[in-house]
Amino acid sequence: MLLDPLLLEIGNHQREVAETLISVGEYLVIFVAARAMAELMVRLQLPTILGELVAGVIIGASGLHLILPPETHAQLSGWLAQFVGNLSDLSAAQVGEIYSETFPNLQAVARLGLYALLFLTGLESELDELVAVGLQATTVAITGVVLPFAMGTAGLHYLFHVPLIPAIFAGAAMTATSIGITASVFGELKFLKTREGQTVIGAAVLDDILGIVILAVVVALAAGEGFTLAPVLKLITAAGLFVAAALFLSRTAAPAFDWCIDQLRAPGDVVVAGFLVLTGCCFAAQAIGLEAALGAFAGGLILSGSRRSQEIQQLVKPLVALFATVFFVLIGTNMDLSVLNPFEPANREGLIVAAFLLTVAIVGKLAAGWSYVSKVKTNRLVVGLGMMPRGEVGLIFLGLGTQAGILTPALEAAILVMVIGTTFLAPILLRLVLAGQPGAPELDPLAEIPT
Amino acid sequence: MLLDPLLLEIGNHQREVAETLISVGEYLVIFVAARAMAELMVRLQLPTILGELVAGVIIGASGLHLILPPETHAQLSGWLAQFVGNLSDLSAAQVGEIYSETFPNLQAVARLGLYALLFLTGLESELDELVAVGLQATTVAITGVVLPFAMGTAGLHYLFHVPLIPAIFAGAAMTATSIGITASVFGELKFLKTREGQTVIGAAVLDDILGIVILAVVVALAAGEGFTLAPVLKLITAAGLFVAAALFLSRTAAPAFDWCIDQLRAPGDVVVAGFLVLTGCCFAAQAIGLEAALGAFAGGLILSGSRRSQEIQQLVKPLVALFATVFFVLIGTNMDLSVLNPFEPANREGLIVAAFLLTVAIVGKLAAGWSYVSKVKTNRLVVGLGMMPRGEVGLIFLGLGTQAGILTPALEAAILVMVIGTTFLAPILLRLVLAGQPGAPELDPLAEIPT
Repeated sequence: MLLDPLLLEIGNHQREVAETLISVGEYLVIFVAARAMAELMVRLQLPTILGELVAGVIIGASGLHLILPPETHAQLSGWLAQFVGNLSDLSAAQVGEIYSETFPNLQAVARLGLYALLFLTGLESELDELVAVGLQATTVAITGVVLPFAMGTAGLHYLFHVPLIPAIFAGAAMTATSIGITASVFGELKFLKTREGQTVIGAAVLDDILGIVILAVVVALAAGEGFTLAPVLKLITAAGLFVAAALFLSRTAAPAFDWCIDQLRAPGDVVVAGFLVLTGCCFAAQAIGLEAALGAFAGGLILSGSRRSQEIQQLVKPLVALFATVFFVLIGTNMDLSVLNPFEPANREGLIVAAFLLTVAIVGKLAAGWSYVSKVKTNRLVVGLGMMPRGEVGLIFLGLGTQAGILTPALEAAILVMVIGTTFLAPILLRLVLAGQPGAPELDPLAEIPT
Repeated sequence: MLLDPLLLEIGNHQREVAETLISVGEYLVIFVAARAMAELMVRLQLPTILGELVAGVIIGASGLHLILPPETHAQLSGWLAQFVGNLSDLSAAQVGEIYSETFPNLQAVARLGLYALLFLTGLESELDELVAVGLQATTVAITGVVLPFAMGTAGLHYLFHVPLIPAIFAGAAMTATSIGITASVFGELKFLKTREGQTVIGAAVLDDILGIVILAVVVALAAGEGFTLAPVLKLITAAGLFVAAALFLSRTAAPAFDWCIDQLRAPGDVVVAGFLVLTGCCFAAQAIGLEAALGAFAGGLILSGSRRSQEIQQLVKPLVALFATVFFVLIGTNMDLSVLNPFEPANREGLIVAAFLLTVAIVGKLAAGWSYVSKVKTNRLVVGLGMMPRGEVGLIFLGLGTQAGILTPALEAAILVMVIGTTFLAPILLRLVLAGQPGAPELDPLAEIPT
């Protein structure tokens, strides 16, 4: 080397100090904000995921500029850059540069959180539940996927002249119900084991599957040269086969997985084996042209048949609590909420789009509550409201769409409004409707179904 | 934008596909290799950490070139680049570029694993044990730190003319005993609750603290303009105060931490609260010019006094099993073992250095076994051997030194030989020596000390 290695070292060390301060500091800011807002939401009896989103908005591009994905092209908060610069003997501009360069590290961790979350969702899918309420849940799920998707895509494309790919993407973001939010409200009000509760949970499991299949197809589509039928059919077939294979393997391959784990003796066997299935399925999905996220979900589905499924869930949960939070907060940081300012005339159309999406998202799922045939009298409003919250699955669409650069800021904000609106309204409306009801889980014929 | 956004998209999507395949594939390769070698080591009754290192060597720069840190300046395996290129419609050269660009993501995850491991080490430090065998353990620890450090640094600098900073670094890498390896051998042979066992565990806790303080000082030193007394004293004082504050807080602040957690109601409360302490301490350490790793350890020490310490340990373990493995495997991938080829005359001196370090590392810790005064007859050879394995702490030095670019390839390989040698020999020799012994934990007055 021609340069003095010690001098190089000095620069290197300052850089390392700044990198460490930035990466550790990012986690600090994200978790302090997310936790504070999550605690607030819990106290307001609202889903914590809303807190994580709001936290992201507060610390992100629309707020304090503390966590700034490079895609936003915004300027890192001046005092923060100065503060880190002082601690690492660098200028604020140098800190800003290192910040942008190292931001992908945080995004990689967020992506890991997304995979862990989808893996956990797959693991927790109790496929037997689906069979028990089979036909009704299937009808509800399919109606609740098809209606918002068709109305949303067609409306955006024909009424608002949004190009086809982003319109499909936004339509797809409205398809999947968040199981977690509905299940927690039902559980809290002791409605989980009623026929309505079982139908909604079964339908939500199924529309997770449908939604993620659609996601895998749409993301791949968005990369193509336009909308032609052959690749779409090919992708839908591939995604369908992939999920069918996972469902088949959850019955057949899980014992082989259990046998393998029994052979392992080094510490950390279960978590590593689970992680290998997860990454293996992600790789397989991506290799055949689908989204890796579908692979993560399929990996969870496969292991849901394992007798160690519970144990794996416990091991994955800390990963989800940490890294999926980063994913959701980052979505919030990315949002440009200034496009929602109603006093800016240029924003009016965007606001109308947001109102349109929210309406379609609500109406589409409510209608699903009236879509099935049942001899027993059931409360169809409860089923419709139960299907309403989009929560994390809608956000996953939004996050991936933003990262892929498919959406305009106005459409991103409109999807965010749709997700926040449905997620916010569903528990409130459900509590109002259910509060007057007897609930009466003891009298229900389905009460003995394990949940 | 002047460019066609759709065209941009296509490139973007191919890039994303390649990135996902690379990052998911990296995990697959790392965990398949690490798990296979760890299982082999368990069956040979050797520490699994050796397996992770060997796995890294096999898949890294000295082996198959599948996992290649950019620092090695080696060429990614041709068939791998071709394979990923085919799947993502890119050329092998483009894949190689994306590989190098995204490698820091993996290193960031490995760094997170390092912090989690040190946090766990701090959490598991049972400070009461240290008090129970107080004086003897302290003498053993200090002797076992001072002797290898002094002999190693002086020998490298004066005999082998290694510059002072790398010599100090290599000396420091010999200071800390790996608690895990000794504890598992002692536990397996039912020797953990003997006086020898307690002395070694107590001394190992203490020399972890000393070792990490030395690490914090040496890394900061390496960044300075040379070796002058004032900054060294300042750093030693800062590091000492930092650890003293952590020890003090573990007695006083842990109840406040428990109280805070009791107030939290959103899911994931314990793991997020623990993570906030971890990142907060890392930030604080780095902000006052010490290594963030010391902060992680100190964070663990603080929470070791919490009544949720066990629960936090359980939550952190999956993180360690996954991400610390990445850290250790990456160390192996970085190593250039060709410098150990004895048939290359230029390597002779490096090999002599390696033999010297290994000898000093063994002799220094064995001598510690004879350093204390005891009225009860104890087996000093067992204590000396128990202090011998360097395991993960030696590797942490090596990993950080390599990343900071302080060490030459020959010195890196010599430290690796020292770590592998002591870690490999200690359990074998301990089993030989202890096999003939009665063990007799029931008769020992210290048997009731909780472990």
